[in-house]
Amino acid sequence: MIVTLAGGVGGSKFVKGLASSRYKEDVTVIINTGDDFERFGLYVSPDVDINIYTLAGLIHEQGWGFKDETYNTQNVLKDFYSQDCWFNLGDKDIATHIYRTHLLKGNYTLTEITKELCDRLGVSLKILPMSNDRIATYIHTPDGRFHFQEYLIQRRMSDKVLNIEYEGSTTASPSPGVLDTISEAGIILFAPSNPLVSIGPILSVPGMKEAIKNSKAKVYAISPIVNGGVIKGPADRMMRDMDMEVSPIGIAEFYGDLLDGIIIDLQDKKHLSALQEIGLEVLVTDTIMDSDEKKVGLANQVVEFAASHNAKAVL
Amino acid sequence: MIVTLAGGVGGSKFVKGLASSRYKEDVTVIINTGDDFERFGLYVSPDVDINIYTLAGLIHEQGWGFKDETYNTQNVLKDFYSQDCWFNLGDKDIATHIYRTHLLKGNYTLTEITKELCDRLGVSLKILPMSNDRIATYIHTPDGRFHFQEYLIQRRMSDKVLNIEYEGSTTASPSPGVLDTISEAGIILFAPSNPLVSIGPILSVPGMKEAIKNSKAKVYAISPIVNGGVIKGPADRMMRDMDMEVSPIGIAEFYGDLLDGIIIDLQDKKHLSALQEIGLEVLVTDTIMDSDEKKVGLANQVVEFAASHNAKAVL
Repeated sequence: MIVTLAGGVGGSKFVKGLASSRYKEDVTVIINTGDDFERFGLYVSPDVDINIYTLAGLIHEQGWGFKDETYNTQNVLKDFYSQDCWFNLGDKDIATHIYRTHLLKGNYTLTEITKELCDRLGVSLKILPMSNDRIATYIHTPDGRFHFQEYLIQRRMSDKVLNIEYEGSTTASPSPGVLDTISEAGIILFAPSNPLVSIGPILSVPGMKEAIKNSKAKVYAISPIVNGGVIKGPADRMMRDMDMEVSPIGIAEFYGDLLDGIIIDLQDKKHLSALQEIGLEVLVTDTIMDSDEKKVGLANQVVEFAASHNAKAVL
Repeated sequence: MIVTLAGGVGGSKFVKGLASSRYKEDVTVIINTGDDFERFGLYVSPDVDINIYTLAGLIHEQGWGFKDETYNTQNVLKDFYSQDCWFNLGDKDIATHIYRTHLLKGNYTLTEITKELCDRLGVSLKILPMSNDRIATYIHTPDGRFHFQEYLIQRRMSDKVLNIEYEGSTTASPSPGVLDTISEAGIILFAPSNPLVSIGPILSVPGMKEAIKNSKAKVYAISPIVNGGVIKGPADRMMRDMDMEVSPIGIAEFYGDLLDGIIIDLQDKKHLSALQEIGLEVLVTDTIMDSDEKKVGLANQVVEFAASHNAKAVL
């Protein structure tokens, strides 16, 4: 059993690799729902949708939303709301939000809805939202508190990050199956997602960290930081604002004693010995997933590296 | 003050004429909401939308929905719901349903939402939904009871109509302003809409008939039946099933003592004396509104005919 914690754009590439890897039958992905929000009365779950669309081969090349998308609904909504649509909702994508909102109104859980969307779009990899309770990631800045999506898109990551809040997480529970899956896992992987706003919210759900610590699984993070920066997203500038080292060292420090090892890019070879000195198993490899082949290759390599260090993981 | 009761496709043509007539400043339209229903969790108000889109110059030539429409959202929803979309929802049209549903969730009334949509789309004619309470028109058939939209579109008007039910109407109230507007009216017009499923539901709202009877206004119907048939819709076959005469006589009998007069088409001149014999003022004219000019012409003519018989209507 391989459990992967993942966020959106960065994480979904690795998840896509796992879904085509030799180990796809054994994989469960736990996805961040801290980015979820309501727009025009529709419930939007960005990271879950990015992963589902990616796995279904329907993702837009920009990394989110449907490919071959149109924006006719939104163009009318703009007039109704007298607002700029800072969060772009395509016409096909809106179908997902209408469906999820409708099912939520009918008291289906996010877990059930995620399963339903996967079935409808032909996605067989097992995907679980981190919680069925509402958790919202807020970014505290000198100009006030903003929902992560507002900070990311509307404010274009221009604010200094003072603090990050996972609103609702103290009273939330992991979604059904999450803790059991973790406790039965042989390998737990933190996808190369933003630690502060993708993996962090998942770890903030009560019981999650304890389950990971108590699991016999070995735990590895794939560093989203490569050569002092990120491929996409605000992780580097957020880490800098939060006084974290913008390197695999900073990633390792953030996850602390949860980690048994870390996967870093060839460009970060210079950090190898420092990471080993803090007791981590380190795989140095090409982590740039700029083709489907490289996604699958990285997934196979990471799982095999983890298994080679872990008697419990029978592959 | 001119009050017009109207349904969707047929009624909206006459309403469009009124909106460009010499009397547009004085017109209030009360619209049937008995066709309203929920689809994919979205609240859809067909007759209100047809009138607003028509007045805004945005109506599709088919008589409902937006012009220049696409169906990308619906095509994905079809897959999610494993259903044929018997009620077509275009992408732009869906924006209206999302907006209305969102505002309803925020406890706005249909009256407020209708006003808001009119403002947003540049419609200045005063439009009121008949009620802010939920009323649903059901058609009883040998195969069971169907919502009117199901009967009309999904079942293509193929069932024999045994009875018509305005569910919820006994406990509903007219929306704010409706009764006052009626009592202050000088002329009340029943648009050439289906009497059974467009004007009937409006008249079924408690207090509505009494207000019309007690009003000093004269009341005229424009017959939707021309030469034994309808321009569009199921009025003729529904009337036949309900053992009504499919002619202006059947229309006059349906409205009974509410009416002071009736406007019939030139093709129905043969009914003139029979209608006069039952005490109605009759205007025989070309009622076929196949151009904007003819819509405006008919509206002006109807209002002036009514005013010429009514000392109270100062134009």
